[in-house]
Amino acid sequence: MSEPASGTRRGSLLIIGGGEDREDDMQVLERFVALCGGPDKRIVVLTAASRVPEKMWAIYDCAFGGMGVARRSELRVASRLEANDAAMAADLAQADGVFITGGDQKRLLALIGGTRLDEALHAALARGACIAGTSAGASAMSAHMLADGKAELHPEKGAVSLGAGIGFVQRVVIDQHFSQRQRLARLLTVVAQNPYLLGVGIDEDTALLIEAGGGIEILGAGAVTVIDGRHMVSNVADIRNRSVPEMVDVRLHLLPSGSRYGARGDGATPAALADFIHIVTNIN
Amino acid sequence: MSEPASGTRRGSLLIIGGGEDREDDMQVLERFVALCGGPDKRIVVLTAASRVPEKMWAIYDCAFGGMGVARRSELRVASRLEANDAAMAADLAQADGVFITGGDQKRLLALIGGTRLDEALHAALARGACIAGTSAGASAMSAHMLADGKAELHPEKGAVSLGAGIGFVQRVVIDQHFSQRQRLARLLTVVAQNPYLLGVGIDEDTALLIEAGGGIEILGAGAVTVIDGRHMVSNVADIRNRSVPEMVDVRLHLLPSGSRYGARGDGATPAALADFIHIVTNIN
Repeated sequence: MSEPASGTRRGSLLIIGGGEDREDDMQVLERFVALCGGPDKRIVVLTAASRVPEKMWAIYDCAFGGMGVARRSELRVASRLEANDAAMAADLAQADGVFITGGDQKRLLALIGGTRLDEALHAALARGACIAGTSAGASAMSAHMLADGKAELHPEKGAVSLGAGIGFVQRVVIDQHFSQRQRLARLLTVVAQNPYLLGVGIDEDTALLIEAGGGIEILGAGAVTVIDGRHMVSNVADIRNRSVPEMVDVRLHLLPSGSRYGARGDGATPAALADFIHIVTNIN
Repeated sequence: MSEPASGTRRGSLLIIGGGEDREDDMQVLERFVALCGGPDKRIVVLTAASRVPEKMWAIYDCAFGGMGVARRSELRVASRLEANDAAMAADLAQADGVFITGGDQKRLLALIGGTRLDEALHAALARGACIAGTSAGASAMSAHMLADGKAELHPEKGAVSLGAGIGFVQRVVIDQHFSQRQRLARLLTVVAQNPYLLGVGIDEDTALLIEAGGGIEILGAGAVTVIDGRHMVSNVADIRNRSVPEMVDVRLHLLPSGSRYGARGDGATPAALADFIHIVTNIN
């Protein structure tokens, strides 16, 4: 295999919309193990997003154990002090794969943001490990992280707030449990106020795979919805808080499971998607 | 007032997403009465979509009575024979406004489609009457009518079927109770299979007003969502029934209450909306 071009990321990102199957076909988790290099590789489960890490670990200990992953371990983080511990970062330096569980993405970032552990995660991705995150672990992957808020029927100015995520991907904001929790209005709210960001909504038991080689793939049970507001005409700057903004010319892409798209210049990728793929596959 | 240009419609269409307020502010119904020319005008309520026309009439009898509309009457249609009755058509010839109630749009069209009554509705619009329709009465207004089916989480090939509506507007398909019943997936299903049609989703207690003069306005409590799939890249032709189609580059417009847009060439109307406005304001 040739060396990756300068500026490319060597590891893959698997961004999972929560609720991935952990007992039956386990399509998404099986893919994660394959991306790590197979069941003989070393997998670390980061449970810091959850207030019940022992329960989270029990679930994935069982699931990965059932797939024959012998070298699996939990990385439990109770404080920023721990997240700055050199031994913890060393744990990650040995990992072929990191799985970030659900919980609360604000808790996760409050614990690990800017620590040695955070740096070690970036280093792991750069050297070729696969990083997966589900639910809160998915939201945490982008630089601009959906932190709080909801919009039930319509987008609502001021209803959603962002925070700083781990930043494996830039210029997107990720939401999960997307179709199941009817979160389009919430994602449109983010895009209305932040047209610089592309909205990415990932369904339950579904993953967006951003491959080391530069393409993307959708796998699992559902679909991924991409919202592109860069061409949008909107009055959001002029309306009051909690009002519904006008949003004209929002581009929506529905990408069902099984879809694969190559990097920019790949003739099989629709032109309207090429820029999204370039953005998410670009190094950060 | 000058004569309308040749090829323009003289009456207005008020397309209501169901659940319009009938007791408190009655914003949508008040606007209907104003569009008819005020409470001294003659208003006919067409209850044919409903299996309980007497209940429908009681509701609107009370609402329009409360607004001081003295010359209000029900047009009840029990059969196609009645809908072909010359006296019924004559009733409509005197109306300044026609209000088409909810119920089932398939029932409405089965009773009146192609009859003298149908012709009289078109004649009423052409000579300047305001035609309003709510819920089933809204869906019935387009030439291609959403007839049956649902898609819960995602668009699904083959999940929705169309029928022939009254045809006041061409090249659109209208859905109602749109945000409240989370019908985006259903509307995307129609557009995936019929990219020629623009999808129009109207919220409850909300109306799309297509003005005689050539512009549109959104009024009431919610918003109108327009789905334009004409630029879409999709695999819908190639996938099996009940599968989720790929839909790349769907254009979405969210138009909140209070929005007004002029006809084509109006500089204040976003370019991406101009074509939609031209289509719905064009004579049919």
